Amino acid sequence: MIDFKSVLKDIQHTVTQIEDKGEVANYIPELQHVDKNAFGIYLNVIGSEDFEIGQSQTKFSAQSITKVLSLALAVSKNADEVWKRVDVEPSGNPFNHISLLEVENGFPRNPFINSGAIVIADILVSSLKNPKQDFLEFVRLLANDNDIHYDTKVAQSEKNTGFKNYAIANLLKSFDNLNNDVDVVLDFYFHQCSLYMSCEQLTNAFFLFANHGRCLSNKLHISASQAKRINAIMLTCGFYDEAGEFAFEVGLPGKSGVGGGIVALLPNKFIISVWSPGLNPKGNSKIGMSALELFTTKTNLSIF
Amino acid sequence: MIDFKSVLKDIQHTVTQIEDKGEVANYIPELQHVDKNAFGIYLNVIGSEDFEIGQSQTKFSAQSITKVLSLALAVSKNADEVWKRVDVEPSGNPFNHISLLEVENGFPRNPFINSGAIVIADILVSSLKNPKQDFLEFVRLLANDNDIHYDTKVAQSEKNTGFKNYAIANLLKSFDNLNNDVDVVLDFYFHQCSLYMSCEQLTNAFFLFANHGRCLSNKLHISASQAKRINAIMLTCGFYDEAGEFAFEVGLPGKSGVGGGIVALLPNKFIISVWSPGLNPKGNSKIGMSALELFTTKTNLSIF
Amino acid sequence: MIDFKSVLKDIQHTVTQIEDKGEVANYIPELQHVDKNAFGIYLNVIGSEDFEIGQSQTKFSAQSITKVLSLALAVSKNADEVWKRVDVEPSGNPFNHISLLEVENGFPRNPFINSGAIVIADILVSSLKNPKQDFLEFVRLLANDNDIHYDTKVAQSEKNTGFKNYAIANLLKSFDNLNNDVDVVLDFYFHQCSLYMSCEQLTNAFFLFANHGRCLSNKLHISASQAKRINAIMLTCGFYDEAGEFAFEVGLPGKSGVGGGIVALLPNKFIISVWSPGLNPKGNSKIGMSALELFTTKTNLSIF
Amino acid sequence: MIDFKSVLKDIQHTVTQIEDKGEVANYIPELQHVDKNAFGIYLNVIGSEDFEIGQSQTKFSAQSITKVLSLALAVSKNADEVWKRVDVEPSGNPFNHISLLEVENGFPRNPFINSGAIVIADILVSSLKNPKQDFLEFVRLLANDNDIHYDTKVAQSEKNTGFKNYAIANLLKSFDNLNNDVDVVLDFYFHQCSLYMSCEQLTNAFFLFANHGRCLSNKLHISASQAKRINAIMLTCGFYDEAGEFAFEVGLPGKSGVGGGIVALLPNKFIISVWSPGLNPKGNSKIGMSALELFTTKTNLSIF
Repeated sequence: MIDFKSVLKDIQHTVTQIEDKGEVANYIPELQHVDKNAFGIYLNVIGSEDFEIGQSQTKFSAQSITKVLSLALAVSKNADEVWKRVDVEPSGNPFNHISLLEVENGFPRNPFINSGAIVIADILVSSLKNPKQDFLEFVRLLANDNDIHYDTKVAQSEKNTGFKNYAIANLLKSFDNLNNDVDVVLDFYFHQCSLYMSCEQLTNAFFLFANHGRCLSNKLHISASQAKRINAIMLTCGFYDEAGEFAFEVGLPGKSGVGGGIVALLPNKFIISVWSPGLNPKGNSKIGMSALELFTTKTNLSIF
Repeated sequence: MIDFKSVLKDIQHTVTQIEDKGEVANYIPELQHVDKNAFGIYLNVIGSEDFEIGQSQTKFSAQSITKVLSLALAVSKNADEVWKRVDVEPSGNPFNHISLLEVENGFPRNPFINSGAIVIADILVSSLKNPKQDFLEFVRLLANDNDIHYDTKVAQSEKNTGFKNYAIANLLKSFDNLNNDVDVVLDFYFHQCSLYMSCEQLTNAFFLFANHGRCLSNKLHISASQAKRINAIMLTCGFYDEAGEFAFEVGLPGKSGVGGGIVALLPNKFIISVWSPGLNPKGNSKIGMSALELFTTKTNLSIF
Repeated sequence: MIDFKSVLKDIQHTVTQIEDKGEVANYIPELQHVDKNAFGIYLNVIGSEDFEIGQSQTKFSAQSITKVLSLALAVSKNADEVWKRVDVEPSGNPFNHISLLEVENGFPRNPFINSGAIVIADILVSSLKNPKQDFLEFVRLLANDNDIHYDTKVAQSEKNTGFKNYAIANLLKSFDNLNNDVDVVLDFYFHQCSLYMSCEQLTNAFFLFANHGRCLSNKLHISASQAKRINAIMLTCGFYDEAGEFAFEVGLPGKSGVGGGIVALLPNKFIISVWSPGLNPKGNSKIGMSALELFTTKTNLSIF
Repeated sequence: MIDFKSVLKDIQHTVTQIEDKGEVANYIPELQHVDKNAFGIYLNVIGSEDFEIGQSQTKFSAQSITKVLSLALAVSKNADEVWKRVDVEPSGNPFNHISLLEVENGFPRNPFINSGAIVIADILVSSLKNPKQDFLEFVRLLANDNDIHYDTKVAQSEKNTGFKNYAIANLLKSFDNLNNDVDVVLDFYFHQCSLYMSCEQLTNAFFLFANHGRCLSNKLHISASQAKRINAIMLTCGFYDEAGEFAFEVGLPGKSGVGGGIVALLPNKFIISVWSPGLNPKGNSKIGMSALELFTTKTNLSIF
């Protein structure tokens, strides 16, 4: 039996000593006022207990992590349309995601790069009655927690400065891969990304991916096969241009966000969320990546 | 002495017999209702007479041809800023102008691809009091003709469908190479492109480039050296991805538009405008290109 | 308990009925004379029995599958140099692997695209006394089978027609990422790819990756951590531009070759090789992919 | 009347005072032992005298300047094949000429980038009896000077280090755009580039391009129309990624080489060669570019 409590303690001990904690994201002005030394983990071991350490209850901006949740909702609504409009291949080129979109005629490489996530947002805007409210309710249901909200200041901040996302959405529209108005889709998308959640809430919300599509309260949202597929995409595409490195070093499906959060999981075994706001040059939480490497090394729990 | 009158007659005779007249542009819905068989030429031989044939007085949508006029106005206002924010190199890659813009960090290759022309529009919006009105007055002054107007239907049509230009403008903004609001700059840009002019008016408006910067009414707008530079850019970048082909076959500085117009010139010698709305696959007037090839072959007037 | 025998039978029954069996590779002339209807599987269930069906003993050209074996040998000799000279990220762009190599200054994206495999070949040429003989002995040792040989006709055939590989090797050399002569490295590389092996031999040779680095005869060749890493690269990069699709549909680390073979594995559980020479448009065995999809669906054995 | 003698003197006076003379090319080891302060001009004013200043008789490595001469010979032998196998468009992208070649399926953008020049070399190898000797005789005939030779040391030096050219030639071969052996074509190409010529000899050799295809001794080598076309390509593609800049600043068809030479011309008017071995970051002679800018500014002789 693994003593998860002391594993988490060891990890905390080790990573808090790392001096270079990376750089807090500043491209969204609202995000940069976070304490760089913040650190928390929340671990759900399926069929056993939950374990937590540090600021596991503190909320932060979930950002790109929410792309997995919006994908799950879109797949549950209309899986066929999702896979017709978005590919599932890693994106490869770090420096030119817009270029790739142009070269590939508006067919995004996968649902986790911005262009893909914006297409998913478009699908949700089309298929939900009250898109923002309905998505929020979906996340609350997954996490079994009603204390989850949008951070409208962050959403507004991105609206004012997210020119690259406007460029992407307009390019998608020029290729007929966006059905709704650019402004409507991006309003939804910026709200989605602004979800303000704690490690505990994220771990709970991701439970279904490790549990064949059934969430904490045992409701089936997506089929086992769909859960497996989303896990595969998390592994190959979940960490921007560091996806290979993460698979290589950690070996778990997962997703990171520029707010400094990372969620990872081993199907049937556990879901873990880590938070530390400083990012490495590739845009993933620096301390979070180290913590997860240590976790799989110490526990020997990885998919490989 | 060249008998220009019969040269133009011969050209008209030859090109009207070409069966495949190309395809009228349909990406701007308003443009597609033009008669494919329309054809006109207006030639100004400096220090001699003017010659015309066919529908030389019929107005059509000048579109990209106006990029040379907006460049001239921007250069007259603030040449330093122009060359700091736009390069003067041919763009090369046909298929990925947005990609190129991304790879080169928002610094457009030249002022005649859309990204470059949008930066020029931004400079004009900043430096003119009433941008749309002032630009219109400038063109009227150049052409010595007050009967020049915007085609607001065409401008509106592009506003509703020009998603690629919105993508470009937002991408420029994300690279800090657009100072004004995207919507304001594009409103100006779409109006600029919608200028409704005849071959005669275009020939007159381009007189200054063949005349060391002095327009028909002898006013100096740009220096002789600036006129020479703009001619160089027309030669190397004036025909989309067919610039090399045009230099190779025709050998004149010039600029085409998707409305089917082409203006070309030989400094100190002549300015010629041709119009035929059918385009070749590269987006240049098919019959217009043939007419200009014939013109330089028959008259032996080319820069090479 | 899963009845693997009938699972394999069912798979054989299903896939032999698929009419479109893909196209046999013809870019290496020697490869195209293979029977398109050939089909075989060899499965090693760790700690249990072996199962086989069809032409599981027939030899075919292993081609790119050998890249995993050469990587394992290079890692066992000099892991530091391997990861200094080759990255571990998916390659993304299907159409321009040479372009990518140029853009990224001669640093191949991963060891399974040709540029990466040629760097690995260069490392082996530097670190082995008799490179071709030593590599052959290594594979025989892994497979516990001395009846494994190079197909020198195929090697020669690639030597005569493999201009793209010569282009890649010279480009690597121009970026100082090839220490030996182009001809020497490619002679080794073409021999490596020409290995002529059966499904049974491939399954046996890949045993170490599912067994923490220990081969069939229990010799430790690479550390458990290195085996885990190579598995991660197989999952993210093992199927050309279909890596994401394979992870998505099958969910196993694996590697394909243009000879029509595929090897896949689940750590601690099993190693499976499939062979059917017809390829899909992405260059992977068409029937082989279907067989593996059926296998993970029927057995529910996947990493996700 | 322009006093060319004092124009050249003024230029020499001005440019010798420029402190930063650029960097002598070192990628071919043999080229780097040249005196950075060397400077010479040789001017042929058609129908008038010749003028020269500085080291106008000193020989240097002509390098890429020879691409215009090999193109002229290939066009005179088989113009149709030339334009079927090479395009005439500027290359645009500075950083990825090999990528461009891959993206465009082995069809080089123009005959002056290396890939295009290697295709021209292939055409000459096919159409000449003794390629190296015949090409040398052609250049001697053009320049009316038998004291022109290959620098075999430089040719050998490139053979040993020109891996990028080997990559290009093999890539061309993989796209079926190279008929002869890579080694044979590159042996010819490296010799061609190694031509050791003075400013005077280059000016004389380029006479035909300013003289409707007739060389100094009045022999017609290419038609007037072909001469015009080659001039157009020189203007749009003669200066690597600085072609636009050169057209913009100088306004003459021309061609530079990494040996520090530049030849430029105004049809019917003059041919001028400048030599100064230090290069600017784009690979063109730094002082040579300045000298030509001064020349067109002072004489007002340009095509625009």
